[in-house]
Amino acid sequence: MTVKVAVAGASGYAGGEALRLLLVHPEVEIGELTAASSAGTPLGQHQRHLAPLADRMLRETTPEILGGHDVVFLALPHGHSGAVAAELGPDVLVVDLGADHRLANAADWQRWYGGEHAGTWPYGLPELPGAREKLAGTKRIAVPGCFPTGGSLALAPALAAGLVRPEVSVVSVTGTSGAGRSLKPHLLGSEVMGSASAYGVGGVHRHTPELAQNLSAVAGERVTVSFTPVLAPMPRGILTTASAPLASEVDSAAARAVYEKAYAAEPFVQLLPEGAWPATSATLGSNNVQLQVTVDADARRLIVVTSIDNLTKGTAGGAIQSMNIALGLPESTGLSTVGVAP
Amino acid sequence: MTVKVAVAGASGYAGGEALRLLLVHPEVEIGELTAASSAGTPLGQHQRHLAPLADRMLRETTPEILGGHDVVFLALPHGHSGAVAAELGPDVLVVDLGADHRLANAADWQRWYGGEHAGTWPYGLPELPGAREKLAGTKRIAVPGCFPTGGSLALAPALAAGLVRPEVSVVSVTGTSGAGRSLKPHLLGSEVMGSASAYGVGGVHRHTPELAQNLSAVAGERVTVSFTPVLAPMPRGILTTASAPLASEVDSAAARAVYEKAYAAEPFVQLLPEGAWPATSATLGSNNVQLQVTVDADARRLIVVTSIDNLTKGTAGGAIQSMNIALGLPESTGLSTVGVAP
Amino acid sequence: MTVKVAVAGASGYAGGEALRLLLVHPEVEIGELTAASSAGTPLGQHQRHLAPLADRMLRETTPEILGGHDVVFLALPHGHSGAVAAELGPDVLVVDLGADHRLANAADWQRWYGGEHAGTWPYGLPELPGAREKLAGTKRIAVPGCFPTGGSLALAPALAAGLVRPEVSVVSVTGTSGAGRSLKPHLLGSEVMGSASAYGVGGVHRHTPELAQNLSAVAGERVTVSFTPVLAPMPRGILTTASAPLASEVDSAAARAVYEKAYAAEPFVQLLPEGAWPATSATLGSNNVQLQVTVDADARRLIVVTSIDNLTKGTAGGAIQSMNIALGLPESTGLSTVGVAP
Amino acid sequence: MTVKVAVAGASGYAGGEALRLLLVHPEVEIGELTAASSAGTPLGQHQRHLAPLADRMLRETTPEILGGHDVVFLALPHGHSGAVAAELGPDVLVVDLGADHRLANAADWQRWYGGEHAGTWPYGLPELPGAREKLAGTKRIAVPGCFPTGGSLALAPALAAGLVRPEVSVVSVTGTSGAGRSLKPHLLGSEVMGSASAYGVGGVHRHTPELAQNLSAVAGERVTVSFTPVLAPMPRGILTTASAPLASEVDSAAARAVYEKAYAAEPFVQLLPEGAWPATSATLGSNNVQLQVTVDADARRLIVVTSIDNLTKGTAGGAIQSMNIALGLPESTGLSTVGVAP
Repeated sequence: MTVKVAVAGASGYAGGEALRLLLVHPEVEIGELTAASSAGTPLGQHQRHLAPLADRMLRETTPEILGGHDVVFLALPHGHSGAVAAELGPDVLVVDLGADHRLANAADWQRWYGGEHAGTWPYGLPELPGAREKLAGTKRIAVPGCFPTGGSLALAPALAAGLVRPEVSVVSVTGTSGAGRSLKPHLLGSEVMGSASAYGVGGVHRHTPELAQNLSAVAGERVTVSFTPVLAPMPRGILTTASAPLASEVDSAAARAVYEKAYAAEPFVQLLPEGAWPATSATLGSNNVQLQVTVDADARRLIVVTSIDNLTKGTAGGAIQSMNIALGLPESTGLSTVGVAP
Repeated sequence: MTVKVAVAGASGYAGGEALRLLLVHPEVEIGELTAASSAGTPLGQHQRHLAPLADRMLRETTPEILGGHDVVFLALPHGHSGAVAAELGPDVLVVDLGADHRLANAADWQRWYGGEHAGTWPYGLPELPGAREKLAGTKRIAVPGCFPTGGSLALAPALAAGLVRPEVSVVSVTGTSGAGRSLKPHLLGSEVMGSASAYGVGGVHRHTPELAQNLSAVAGERVTVSFTPVLAPMPRGILTTASAPLASEVDSAAARAVYEKAYAAEPFVQLLPEGAWPATSATLGSNNVQLQVTVDADARRLIVVTSIDNLTKGTAGGAIQSMNIALGLPESTGLSTVGVAP
Repeated sequence: MTVKVAVAGASGYAGGEALRLLLVHPEVEIGELTAASSAGTPLGQHQRHLAPLADRMLRETTPEILGGHDVVFLALPHGHSGAVAAELGPDVLVVDLGADHRLANAADWQRWYGGEHAGTWPYGLPELPGAREKLAGTKRIAVPGCFPTGGSLALAPALAAGLVRPEVSVVSVTGTSGAGRSLKPHLLGSEVMGSASAYGVGGVHRHTPELAQNLSAVAGERVTVSFTPVLAPMPRGILTTASAPLASEVDSAAARAVYEKAYAAEPFVQLLPEGAWPATSATLGSNNVQLQVTVDADARRLIVVTSIDNLTKGTAGGAIQSMNIALGLPESTGLSTVGVAP
Repeated sequence: MTVKVAVAGASGYAGGEALRLLLVHPEVEIGELTAASSAGTPLGQHQRHLAPLADRMLRETTPEILGGHDVVFLALPHGHSGAVAAELGPDVLVVDLGADHRLANAADWQRWYGGEHAGTWPYGLPELPGAREKLAGTKRIAVPGCFPTGGSLALAPALAAGLVRPEVSVVSVTGTSGAGRSLKPHLLGSEVMGSASAYGVGGVHRHTPELAQNLSAVAGERVTVSFTPVLAPMPRGILTTASAPLASEVDSAAARAVYEKAYAAEPFVQLLPEGAWPATSATLGSNNVQLQVTVDADARRLIVVTSIDNLTKGTAGGAIQSMNIALGLPESTGLSTVGVAP
């Protein structure tokens, strides 16, 4: 099978990562690349690392140009995917890397993003219970946010098994590429190098309701989520520390057994050997999730740490994993489990 | 007044930072500098930034060499301060930058560090209730650990005011200098650059009992502490995200008022304007603590973020602040409230 | 003596560094702070590290507001200083941190910057032969560019002593703050972290004629300069590797003797011990220049390496050093020879 | 064809990169992995990013264990390859990533490395004139040093075409992984982050004679090389600025034409569009060399800048490229021309 894939938003970080991965996907032919203000310029001006595509011209993001592909990746600013997707036919597999189709609840969308809700699509985190089944054969995929990817996988097994109470705390340390290529003063190299900083504190980050939605579905009850992102001086990677109060007496070995069972068959989730803790460098550029779990007996809390590459498993790699499922390809096709380190 | 200060452990990061600050302290004359394996070499080989002291020879750490000073800073590995201090007379002000005299409870010392407990000295975090009084005129100071500094100041006002329940979660993102100059593979530049990693997870980090001790004293009841340190790719700085469940209905404004009152008179604690969140770059090289507080109404938790320089306020700057109090000098003497940024 | 100092361009990196240093200058009172688009906002919004000035309001950059000070620092974009300075009286000491008054030759200005030449002021690099004398008592100072500071001090002694031929090569590795706070895509943290990149290659960087002007004056003949800047992933610091073909047989010891003599009396230039090579971390935040020199006998070239902090000695610290000379103060007043490391 | 490949030195950075690339090579089966002090431990303890090989046990580096493979990669400290290779049969393709077999001249080996010269093998930089032919069918490959890779490709076309005089200057800014995993104080993260530093200055770095050997062979006369490495705060990448005096009147367009012709058929060398300058991020993880050339008419010098990933094209990727040639496989098999950015 060869599928022809267009990428809208090819000049940004998410679009660039999608192309980096699609270039080595054995069943993919890369079709049109589109952009907004960069339309009319060659991709090489914006993505210096994508040498084989350096001379490809960026075109405008229109239904005419995106039509005629088997798959369309939408790496657009929040609020832009809905209108574009509506113009693409039902036979086109549309993979939305933005937030537009993630939230099930229109009121949540209204509160956190504003504007009209574009609807809810099958959610592209196959490791969540039930998600893989909904992705099979679908023509519409809502790719998760980068923080909800690491946070949901950290806590889902514990909540599903009833190990913890439904009051979770998540602190995620992220590289800067998660903020995209927007020219904001606090994202300048001079500002971020040598500095860790908090932002979106106090339950106001837009990934909070998505994380709560995922975890509540798994737990079968409403889960409250305290989420704090921290910006760290690195281009890529998210290290998530997630914790919750124990629901009953459980020790580290028992908690580990729950996670072993939950992820035994997952090709991209690695429960590390006991005593080893995740580092983002180990997953850089790969589709892997590295995970470790323990119980703090003094504090009576379960602690789980995960590491992912925010652009790969957290965005474009996760998107391709879900695309593979939707197309009936082996789930790991074209995706790497090997990081780039040191 | 001019006091003559010796520094034991002058070739390490804590000793180097002490010297950086002592060099600009108007009431200090720098006396002998000692080291272990580096004794007999000039300081300039180890501390290239301390140009005025480049030719000073490092001597051995003995009572004879350290004696005869008004003040002795001990920047030694844990477990080494007790024996050295015992040989110094009661008139010498001994400032211990190590852990040996921080824990009040001998059983805690035994569990977390092992070996014989060296005793408990007045604790060098003047911003904690009652601490400043105990430091006045003392001849023995136990300088806090870097993590307990940022974490204690984050939560003490809320616990003292009864805003939160005594079950706190603390995630601290730290630069690498906190681990000292020890040659460990995971501290190599190639390993840490571009990577965030967790370590000491699950309540096993040695700063956990110190943080619990501080917060329990403030709260007047036992406080459980879930503490997770995260190593980030920067040389200095600690950004602490601390949270706890609300004890009663309180909103952000009310929480803010508690912190404003608690720290109004503190020269080194800055409650940032509403909406501004701490970054470690803003406190780099200074003795400041930058702090912000909010309430997450959905998750019903108080969230406090602090930033410090782990070597300055978190170690040597805090030590000098306490030394000033002990000597009867104005508390801010020789200490900066201006960071080095960008 | 207390002098009242205004800073125009206080929201940028050069202006911020000037304020960081002026805050600890014992003879300075900080007066008005002005900005362009940020006028009307508090300084704390832009310079989070300058805690003591956080509430100061930025005003517009006008002659009325800047007038009435003893000293005015102009940290403005190139081409803006001339007009402002023309409105300030002859009794005001004007310190121009921009390029407007550095080049002696109007044709050079026209070629490299364009527009009308604003004239030439005494050049604020006291370590160059004759410069200190011209700065004494002056009311106008042209602060050098950051690259010409490190490059000129690297090669001036060798050219003055006739050790090398007047054909020099200079490669300077710089931190990102030299590019200022402008929002350009290649200055985003995501782009610069983990990457070294060349720019302004082939003799097109505007600091080239300034460097050639300095070195030609010292050599007494026209010196050709091949200059290449390299952007490295760090906020501050310039490490300059300068070399030139030997003019005669000279070995490392003889070359070292020339540099020892040239800089023996300089308070801010440190010739490192033999075998030690400069690192930018050792000069971070200080006004120091660290320097090492050797001869490559096989290649028959002299090699000199210097490190400076681009914002301190390379901009605002050098400016204050020259201000001190102009005001008749001891040259080192308020300036540090101690770096902030690690 | 499937070839079975052993890697000696699998716990180091060069060995780890070889494995990262061999894992995706379609004609390779990974055989035994060996180490020195780490023998007996699983690879996952040392190479956290190589998830598919995490449970592989490291064995001792002996002829018995390495024998029986089609190809053996030697990623050993300098001076160790000769003895191991001597024990491997003439039918085994031995790829030496160390320096032992690079220098043609025994006296050079003696001067720069000391000890007995192990002999000279075909040199694994196929882009140099004549090199590809010597690699075809060979059973012994000397992989170039990382600096000579970037430096040789920068200057070979100009010297071959007689554009420049045989007196070249090379300044290479390198990431820290080039220094390997050795535990040295100046390689600690706390020391390297935020700092650029020079080392091996004045013609004393061991890659100097290798670079001179390559360039002299191309030029057909002795080329003197002034080489200075600079350590920058990044894990990977080398940005090389190379220059030489013009031999005759030549402008940038003519110089560019020479490089276009020289590298037109090379799969891994990209001459960038005019005005674009290399950045190491664009080649990270790929086998590419990005290159730009210009003429500085004022200084009468040719300036060439190259970027490579020191571990990929500079070590293990270059090794696989040469292995492919030796085995008669398409040269690009298993190698990527796509970088990992941002």
